[in-house]
Amino acid sequence: MTKYLFTLLLFLLCTAGFSQDKNEDMIRKIYDEALANGQSYEMLEYLTTRIGHRLSGSPQAAAAVEWTRQQMEQLGFDTVFLQPVMVPHWVRGEKEVVRLINSSTYGSRELHSLALGNSVGSGPQGVSAEIVEVQNFDELDKLGKAGIQGKIVFFNRPMDPKLIHTFQAYGGAVNQRGQGASRAAAYGAVAVLVRSMASNNDDVPHTGSLRYDPNQPQIPAVAISTNDANLLSDVLKKEGSARVYLETHCEMLPDILSYNVIGEIRGTQNKEEYIVVGGHLDSWDVGQGAHDDGSGCVQAIEAVRILKSLNYKPKHSIRAVMFMNEENGLRGGREYAAQASTLGQPHIAAIESDAGGFTPRGFTITGNEAQTAKLKSWGQWLAPYGLHDLGSPGGGADIGPLRESGTVLFGLRPDSQRYFNYHHTEEDTFDKIDKRELELGAAAMSALIYLIDSEGL
Amino acid sequence: MTKYLFTLLLFLLCTAGFSQDKNEDMIRKIYDEALANGQSYEMLEYLTTRIGHRLSGSPQAAAAVEWTRQQMEQLGFDTVFLQPVMVPHWVRGEKEVVRLINSSTYGSRELHSLALGNSVGSGPQGVSAEIVEVQNFDELDKLGKAGIQGKIVFFNRPMDPKLIHTFQAYGGAVNQRGQGASRAAAYGAVAVLVRSMASNNDDVPHTGSLRYDPNQPQIPAVAISTNDANLLSDVLKKEGSARVYLETHCEMLPDILSYNVIGEIRGTQNKEEYIVVGGHLDSWDVGQGAHDDGSGCVQAIEAVRILKSLNYKPKHSIRAVMFMNEENGLRGGREYAAQASTLGQPHIAAIESDAGGFTPRGFTITGNEAQTAKLKSWGQWLAPYGLHDLGSPGGGADIGPLRESGTVLFGLRPDSQRYFNYHHTEEDTFDKIDKRELELGAAAMSALIYLIDSEGL
Repeated sequence: MTKYLFTLLLFLLCTAGFSQDKNEDMIRKIYDEALANGQSYEMLEYLTTRIGHRLSGSPQAAAAVEWTRQQMEQLGFDTVFLQPVMVPHWVRGEKEVVRLINSSTYGSRELHSLALGNSVGSGPQGVSAEIVEVQNFDELDKLGKAGIQGKIVFFNRPMDPKLIHTFQAYGGAVNQRGQGASRAAAYGAVAVLVRSMASNNDDVPHTGSLRYDPNQPQIPAVAISTNDANLLSDVLKKEGSARVYLETHCEMLPDILSYNVIGEIRGTQNKEEYIVVGGHLDSWDVGQGAHDDGSGCVQAIEAVRILKSLNYKPKHSIRAVMFMNEENGLRGGREYAAQASTLGQPHIAAIESDAGGFTPRGFTITGNEAQTAKLKSWGQWLAPYGLHDLGSPGGGADIGPLRESGTVLFGLRPDSQRYFNYHHTEEDTFDKIDKRELELGAAAMSALIYLIDSEGL
Repeated sequence: MTKYLFTLLLFLLCTAGFSQDKNEDMIRKIYDEALANGQSYEMLEYLTTRIGHRLSGSPQAAAAVEWTRQQMEQLGFDTVFLQPVMVPHWVRGEKEVVRLINSSTYGSRELHSLALGNSVGSGPQGVSAEIVEVQNFDELDKLGKAGIQGKIVFFNRPMDPKLIHTFQAYGGAVNQRGQGASRAAAYGAVAVLVRSMASNNDDVPHTGSLRYDPNQPQIPAVAISTNDANLLSDVLKKEGSARVYLETHCEMLPDILSYNVIGEIRGTQNKEEYIVVGGHLDSWDVGQGAHDDGSGCVQAIEAVRILKSLNYKPKHSIRAVMFMNEENGLRGGREYAAQASTLGQPHIAAIESDAGGFTPRGFTITGNEAQTAKLKSWGQWLAPYGLHDLGSPGGGADIGPLRESGTVLFGLRPDSQRYFNYHHTEEDTFDKIDKRELELGAAAMSALIYLIDSEGL
């Protein structure tokens, strides 16, 4: 009996040891493949410089759907298919104009501007009105109808530079962009200007979506660059008032058919259970959508390609999903989760990369305590690759709807310092991507898929 | 007695608790100051775009000495002084030429090249010879005199892309640049070409220093871009041989007087004991020396400025030191340590930033086990700022000579992925610097100075 126990103990120790070495070895192979033979950078170059930006409903979005489908076919995924989804079709139209009028300090001058996504156009006649600056909705509410009626509200609260993680600073400022228009319209404002959601001060305006409150009139909403926001604020301080002419030509056209693009390698044991890795294929209609979120798409494809190239036979079925319409509707993410539910396909985990193609620092998670503890325990294999930040709450917008059926969500967490210099701007282009940083993100996701698949959650 | 013990215990608990909060609070203030009122970015803009690159002995190096002196004076440091040091005075002269001759595949074409620092010139007559490619000194030794005499040796071992920390990959390749010329000269080579020490493949050549073995003839040595190294290797594979014409005009002039620039705030308790924070003021003679090492210089000044602006009264005297001549001689670092020893000034710690102005990930250390454990224990205060990588062995070239008298050395460890895209090239310019990343590095060093000063080592 003692001998039996001893043998059992020895066996357990050996297999534990073997298990550790096996994970260490496999993750080393994943990184070697990503860094020595990686294909994510070349894929991203094509997606961003040949296809370009790809707002939902645009011809480029359609081209991106077809190209990613072909890409995954060529890589020999077991199944590649398109999942139809109706998406909003917003168009910017002719270039917007925001003009400061007759400032005694700065004269009349154009401000660097971009209409917000989903916003209505002013029409060719434009809007001309006095500016009233506020930092937040409390100030807006205090001004009330008396202070706001007939005016253009200028939301000018900066992202807090003192927050280390820039997404936190973004979270603290973005309600001005998302809700500002309807909040101001409730008091009779005729339009809103919003300080760009940016970490830096420059001349580059940042777009992004707004949501109109169905109970309020829809008024035009435009972002101006941080430098111009400072200038406009300066005019108000120095001159006591400022007047702006604003003209936008945006339109919301009828919904249009588009697709999520899904590539799968079949599991060998629990093949009816899925692990999903993804990014969103749509981008704003400026720049090239390189960090947001071309990176996430090619990293998702690459994460699966790496496992395939290493001849890894997953227990579960693994899917790379390019979600459509994250930016101004989230229709793709919602449709994917709805289909998974309708078809009774359990998804044990979903991983999203939608925070830029920068050096990965870790993973966020939405799961229970035990699952969070498990992710942290995997630090023993992930920390040697610079992945120290494991277990903060989070996930990803597109995979969010899967949470309802209990899927554990993970978000790749890259270094965040430069993200909001480029986010939703003309500057989000391929030349802002570093090859190694991109590859490390793909490898990190591939390693996490492997750990989830082999160790369980 | 029991009551006394209880009171003592309570007191100890309170001060321990207070001590923790105190550190957390102070480090939060340091980061707030760096991120909200930081001056490092503006300083770096001046140093890199107004003064430019600043090789030891150049007029720009002299201008940089005077500017950093004035800068620290204006910031109100207690003492600012110049420490004279004789430095090598190497000049590149007229632009180098490396020309592939009569390749049947590529014809005759110029390769992107930069002579290595400290190398001799070929003179206007140039050198024309057959190329022999090797990956390492073993292959060189095997070829011997018979295979090398009269030829140009082409060292073509790439940095290993599979290493996560790029400085490790650099360490694994850089002996080709440092020793290749003399090793090849020993077998009668007439010149050497060296594949650029780079993480990426592009057309940008990377310079850097070599050291001639005093027992071997001095032959010209030139770096070529990674793309051109691949091309040359391709010619050898396809055509069996390749011929190159090489012309360089470098010269080593007599040593010239320069300076370390030192700014100090006086300690209040152990003021004869020093904590040093520094970077090197010299750079290569191409680009602007932005990451290498303008960043380290302005971060060192800023680290001290932050403490001063918070009205922190250090126990020890704190010095920001801009070392001269790290790149091709290390004379400044050696002179600083020699003077500290001569003057009997104990230096308890020295911190160097010389790995780029990227997001800081932690600190390396050269110290004993207890000191390393102490640094790791400070992770409780540093990890919230993304500083997880604490305690790997390292330090910095300039502060290295202080180790002889027992100084504990620390190196700021920024994210390393992009460093060797720019290192020692035309591309190491101010526009490659992100303001927040730079500021976070300055704050990290300021926090470490504070912890060393207040907690001891």
